[in-house]
Amino acid sequence: MKIKTLLQPGSALLMLGAMALPALAQDTAAAPEVAVAATEVPVHTVYILNTLLFVVSGFLVMWMAAGFAMLEAGLVRSKNVSMQLTKNVALFSIAAIMYYLIGYMLMYPGDAWTIPGVLGAFGVATLEPVGVAPDAADALDYASTGSDFFFQLMFCATTASIVSGTLAERMKLWPFLIFTIILTGILYPIQASWKWGGGFLDADFGFLDFAGSTVVHSVGGWAALTGALILGARKGKYVDGQVHPMPGSNMPLATLGTFILWLGWFGFNGGSQLAMGSVGDAADVSRIFANTNTAAAGGAIAALILTQILYKKVDITMVLNGALAGLVSITAEPLTPSLGVATIIGAIGGVIVVFAVPLLDKLKIDDVVGAIPVHLLAGIWGTFAVVFTNEDATVYGQVASIVIVAVFMIVTSGVVWLILNGIMGLRVSEEEEMDGLDKGEIGVEAYPEFTKI
Amino acid sequence: MKIKTLLQPGSALLMLGAMALPALAQDTAAAPEVAVAATEVPVHTVYILNTLLFVVSGFLVMWMAAGFAMLEAGLVRSKNVSMQLTKNVALFSIAAIMYYLIGYMLMYPGDAWTIPGVLGAFGVATLEPVGVAPDAADALDYASTGSDFFFQLMFCATTASIVSGTLAERMKLWPFLIFTIILTGILYPIQASWKWGGGFLDADFGFLDFAGSTVVHSVGGWAALTGALILGARKGKYVDGQVHPMPGSNMPLATLGTFILWLGWFGFNGGSQLAMGSVGDAADVSRIFANTNTAAAGGAIAALILTQILYKKVDITMVLNGALAGLVSITAEPLTPSLGVATIIGAIGGVIVVFAVPLLDKLKIDDVVGAIPVHLLAGIWGTFAVVFTNEDATVYGQVASIVIVAVFMIVTSGVVWLILNGIMGLRVSEEEEMDGLDKGEIGVEAYPEFTKI
Amino acid sequence: MKIKTLLQPGSALLMLGAMALPALAQDTAAAPEVAVAATEVPVHTVYILNTLLFVVSGFLVMWMAAGFAMLEAGLVRSKNVSMQLTKNVALFSIAAIMYYLIGYMLMYPGDAWTIPGVLGAFGVATLEPVGVAPDAADALDYASTGSDFFFQLMFCATTASIVSGTLAERMKLWPFLIFTIILTGILYPIQASWKWGGGFLDADFGFLDFAGSTVVHSVGGWAALTGALILGARKGKYVDGQVHPMPGSNMPLATLGTFILWLGWFGFNGGSQLAMGSVGDAADVSRIFANTNTAAAGGAIAALILTQILYKKVDITMVLNGALAGLVSITAEPLTPSLGVATIIGAIGGVIVVFAVPLLDKLKIDDVVGAIPVHLLAGIWGTFAVVFTNEDATVYGQVASIVIVAVFMIVTSGVVWLILNGIMGLRVSEEEEMDGLDKGEIGVEAYPEFTKI
Repeated sequence: MKIKTLLQPGSALLMLGAMALPALAQDTAAAPEVAVAATEVPVHTVYILNTLLFVVSGFLVMWMAAGFAMLEAGLVRSKNVSMQLTKNVALFSIAAIMYYLIGYMLMYPGDAWTIPGVLGAFGVATLEPVGVAPDAADALDYASTGSDFFFQLMFCATTASIVSGTLAERMKLWPFLIFTIILTGILYPIQASWKWGGGFLDADFGFLDFAGSTVVHSVGGWAALTGALILGARKGKYVDGQVHPMPGSNMPLATLGTFILWLGWFGFNGGSQLAMGSVGDAADVSRIFANTNTAAAGGAIAALILTQILYKKVDITMVLNGALAGLVSITAEPLTPSLGVATIIGAIGGVIVVFAVPLLDKLKIDDVVGAIPVHLLAGIWGTFAVVFTNEDATVYGQVASIVIVAVFMIVTSGVVWLILNGIMGLRVSEEEEMDGLDKGEIGVEAYPEFTKI
Repeated sequence: MKIKTLLQPGSALLMLGAMALPALAQDTAAAPEVAVAATEVPVHTVYILNTLLFVVSGFLVMWMAAGFAMLEAGLVRSKNVSMQLTKNVALFSIAAIMYYLIGYMLMYPGDAWTIPGVLGAFGVATLEPVGVAPDAADALDYASTGSDFFFQLMFCATTASIVSGTLAERMKLWPFLIFTIILTGILYPIQASWKWGGGFLDADFGFLDFAGSTVVHSVGGWAALTGALILGARKGKYVDGQVHPMPGSNMPLATLGTFILWLGWFGFNGGSQLAMGSVGDAADVSRIFANTNTAAAGGAIAALILTQILYKKVDITMVLNGALAGLVSITAEPLTPSLGVATIIGAIGGVIVVFAVPLLDKLKIDDVVGAIPVHLLAGIWGTFAVVFTNEDATVYGQVASIVIVAVFMIVTSGVVWLILNGIMGLRVSEEEEMDGLDKGEIGVEAYPEFTKI
Repeated sequence: MKIKTLLQPGSALLMLGAMALPALAQDTAAAPEVAVAATEVPVHTVYILNTLLFVVSGFLVMWMAAGFAMLEAGLVRSKNVSMQLTKNVALFSIAAIMYYLIGYMLMYPGDAWTIPGVLGAFGVATLEPVGVAPDAADALDYASTGSDFFFQLMFCATTASIVSGTLAERMKLWPFLIFTIILTGILYPIQASWKWGGGFLDADFGFLDFAGSTVVHSVGGWAALTGALILGARKGKYVDGQVHPMPGSNMPLATLGTFILWLGWFGFNGGSQLAMGSVGDAADVSRIFANTNTAAAGGAIAALILTQILYKKVDITMVLNGALAGLVSITAEPLTPSLGVATIIGAIGGVIVVFAVPLLDKLKIDDVVGAIPVHLLAGIWGTFAVVFTNEDATVYGQVASIVIVAVFMIVTSGVVWLILNGIMGLRVSEEEEMDGLDKGEIGVEAYPEFTKI
C-alpha cells in the first residue's frame, strides 16, 4: 500500500515533484524522473543487500562442508568413518586458514597481479575496519569485503571437500592434509583468479562459469582423479577382473549429506549473482534458486528411472549422486536456462553418473563416493552446456578453458601427490587398510557398539 | 548503475535538491511530508525484500524434505530404510518437476481459470526474463515470479512428503511415485487454488488458512489415510486383537528430522506472510516466527507430560510428534495469536497426538510414523482454531472448507489408490515385506554392517 | 545513529525540505549533501533489515539446539541416547515457554527494574500488535519486538543446552527438567540482565561480552560443573585411580552436531551486532561471520596438531571440541579482532580443550561430552581475551564480571541442584545406570536393531 501512496497524485513524493516545483513546473517532463528516483534502491541499501546476500549464501555454502562429511561418512565402511569425518573437518579448517593467509589475495589481486592475468598478489586478506564509514568502504557499490571473503572462502573449501571422498578408505591423514594446504592456498586460488579474479580466461577466452562447474567442481574432480590414479584402488576392490562392491555403511547419512548439499547449493549458485540490490538482480537470484532446484530434481529422476531400467532396481546411491550431478551441471549457468531446460541439463548430469560409475570401475579407478562422475564429468558437461542457453558463451572459449584448467590441475596436483608419495607415502599399510583407518590413525571408532566384526 | 545515476549531476535526485525546491522553501509545512516519504521503503526495495523473504523461506521449507526423510528413516525398521530414503528424495524431485509442468499454473491461474474459482489454468510455469527491468516485472509491488514459484513449490512437495511415512514398510516404490505425480501435479494444486489461488473457498467461504493446516497438512493426511485404508496394515502389526509394536530403528535420526522440520517451519509460516517490505509486514513475520516456535514447544511439552502421566515413561517418539503437531496446529493462523495462546494451540495439538496414536491402532489403521495424527488431526484442529484468534474467520467458513477439502481428497486420492492397486498392486509381496523392501526393490541395504539379523 | 541524524532538525533531509533549499538553489555546492541523504537507508528499511537480521540469526541459533542434541547423542553410549535426545528436545521447549513467561521481562526490564541494575521486571513477553503501524512500533530505530524476543530466546535455550551433555548417562529426566525451568526462567535472565539488559555489569563495570562467552557459555558451564560435582561420576569411570574411557556411540552424529553448531554460531555472533541497517553495521556483521569461522578453524587445527603430537593419533572428538572451543572463545568479541588474531584466539581455545579434558579426569569430574572445557574454560578465556583487541575493555571489568557471574551461578545452581537432590534425587539407580537410562525412563531404545548387547 505504501507503494500506491507514493505513486498517487498528491502523495508526498509527487507533491515534492509537482507543486513544490514551480521551477520544475515549467518542465513537467522532469517530474516522472523524480518519482522514478524515489522508487529506486538507495546506494547504502544496495551495499547492505549485497552484503546480506553474501553472508546468507556463505553460510549455506559453509553448510555444504557438513554435507560432504555426511555423504562420505555414509558411503565408506564403518571402520573408516572416523577418519573420513576427521578429514572433512580438518580440510574445511585448513581451507579457512589458507584462504586467509594466501588464497584470497592470490585469487582477487585487483590491480596487483604478480604476473598479469596469470598469477595474483601475495598477502593476507584484510577486512574493512570496524564500523566502516560509507566513504571508506572498499566498494560501496558492491558489498563489504568481509562478506565477499566469507563467501569466496566457502568455494575454496568446497573444492577441497570434493577430493576427500574419492580417496577414502586407503589414504593417510597427513599427506591428505598437506595436499589440502596446497590445493586451498595455491592451486585453487590461482586457477580461480583466471576466471573470477579477472584473469586471462575471463579476459581473453570469454570463459563463462557462473558458479564454478569448472572453477570449483572440475578442479576438485581433477585433483581427486590424479590422486586416485597415483594411490591405486582399495585392496580387494578389483580382483581377477571382478569388481567387488564395498557397500557404504550408512544410507541415511549419505541421504542427509545429499540434502545438505542440495540446500547449500542455493547459496552456491544464488550468491554467485553477486548482487541483490536491484529488481533485476533480485529476480535473477530467484531464477537461479528455481533452476538449481529443478536441475537437481532432473538429475535424481534421471538416475532413478535409468537404474530401474538397467538394473531392475533403483539404486539409492545413484539417485543421490544423480541429484548432485544435476546440481554440478547447472552450476556453470544457473541463470539463463528456462526451468525446462535447467531440468534437462540436470537430467543429463544424472545420466552421466549412471554410466560413468561402472565405467570407472572398468578402468579400475576406485572412486569411493563417485566424486569423479559427479564433480568432474558433470562439471565438464555443465561448463559446455552454457553455450546452449547463454549467447555470450562460445564453444571455443568453454572448451579451451576446460582444457587449460584440466592441464593445470592434472600437472600440478599430480606433481604434489607424487612428491608427497615420495616423501611420506600416501597410502596406509595393507594391514591398516584391512583393520580400518580409524584404528590406525584416529584411535576412535565411529560406531564402537554397532558393527558385527 | 542505479547508484551512478543518483550521483550524476543533473540526475533526478539532484534536480530535486537543486532546482526544484525554491518554491518549497516558501512553504515549510511541506517539510514533514518530505521527511515521512524519506522514511518509507522505496518500491524497488519492497520488491527485493519480498523476493528475499521468499527465497530464504523457500530454502527453509526445502530443508523440510530432509526433515521428513530423516524422521521417516528413523521411525521405520532398518530393513526398509533405503526404500524410505529413496521415496523421499524421489517425491521431492517429482514435486519439483510436476509443479513446474502443471501445478503452478493450475494453482495460480490469475485471470485464466478454466472453470472460474474451481479449476485453474493449464501450462508450464514461466519466470520473469533474466535481469528483468522494473517496469517489466510481473508484479513490482509483490515479488519476483521465480521466488514465488520456488516458495510455493516447496509447499507442494511438503504435501507429498506427508504421505510417504504413513504407508512405509509395505508399499511398493513405483505406485507410490505415480501417486505422487498425480498428487503434486493435479490434486494438491487444484484444491490449493480454491484458497490460495483466489478460488471459491477464498472468495465464497471466507476460508482462512494462513500457511496450510488444511491446504497442505490435512491434504497430505487425507491422502495418507485413504492409502493406509486401502493398503492395510503391516503383517504382524495387529494379530489376535493385540497391537505389536515395531520400533523405529534410529531415534537420533527421528529427532534430527523433527528439529529440521521445526527449523523449516519458520520459513513455512513466516514466508506465508508474503511480504516483508513494510514495518508492519516485518513485525508480522517476526510475530509468526515467535508463535511458530512456541506452538512447537507447547506440543512437545504437552506430549512429554501426558506420556509421563499415562505411561509412567516419556515416549520420545510422542514428544517429537507432539512438537510437530504443535507446528501443524499453529500453521492455519500463526499471526494473530498471542504467544500464550499460540502455546496453548500447539499444546492441544500435542494432546491430540498422544490420544490419537493408540486410537488409530484400535481402528487397525497402521500409520507407521504417526502422520495422520500429526498432519491430519492437528491440521483440522489448527484450521478450526483460527476462529478463536482471528475475527475474520467464521466457524461455518472453516468447517465447510475442511469438509469440502476432505471430500475432494478422500474421493480423488481414494480413486487413484484404487486404480493403481488394480493395475499394478500397491503392496509388496508378503515375502518381500518380511525380508524388507530394501532388498526387494532398492538393492542397497541402509546399514549393511550394523543389523543383527 | 543514521536514523537520528535523519530526524534531527538541520540534518540533510530536513534541510532538503525546509530551510536549506532556497539557498541551495543558488549554491550548487550544497548539492552533495542532498545526494548523501538520498544514499542513506530510510528508517523503515533500517527497521526491516534489523528485524530480518534477528529472524535469520534467530533461526540459525535455534538450529544449534539440534546441534547440541546430535553432538550429545553421538558422545553418549547407545543405551542412553533416547534419554539424551529427550532432554534436548524438552529443554529447548521449556526454555521457549519459560522465557516467554518470565525470562524476557526479567532480562530486558527497560525502565521497570524491580531492583535497579540487579533484578529486572516480572511479566510475560508481549509482542507488537499485528500489522503494527510505524509510529506504534516499540522501537522504530531498532527492530520488531517479536524478532528481538525470538532471537534472545535462543540464547536462553543455548545456555540450557550446555548443561545436559556434562550430566549425561546418570541423571534422571525430571530433576534435570525442573533445573532447566529455573535456569531458563530465572538464573539465566537475571545474570544476563546485568550485562545485556543494561544492568550493573554493563553500567558500572564496563563489562564487554559481545555474544556471550560469559553470559551464555560460562553460565551454562558453571551450572554443568556444579551439577557434575553434586551428581558424581558415572559408575566405573574412575576405578582404582584409573580412568576408564566410555566411548561415544556415534561419531558421525557428533560431527554433524559440531557442524550444526558451527553454522548456528554465525547467527549467534552475527546477530549480536543487533543492527544491519547501515553500511557500517552490515560490514561489521560480515566481519563477525568471517572471524567466527576462522576462530573455529583455529580451534580445530590446534586440537588436531596437538593430539597428534601428544598421542600420536588425531582424536576426532578433540578436534570437534577444539572447533567448538574456538567458537566459544571468539564469542565475547567477534568484531574487533583481525582474521589472524581471531584465528589465534580460537586456537588457544582448542589448546585449552586438549589439556583440560584429561585434567578434569584427574580431578574425577566426569564431563561426558567435554562441555566444561569447551563452554566454561574457553568461555573464560574468550571473555578475558577481549582486552587484547577492544580498547574499551579493561582487565578489571572483564575479570570482575567473570568472577561475579561465576559466584552467582555456582551458588544459585548449586543450591538448586542440592534441593532437587534432597527432594527427588538427581541420580538414577545403579541398576538403571547399568541397563541404560533409555530402558528405565524413556522406554524407547535409540537403536533397537543395532547394538550387540
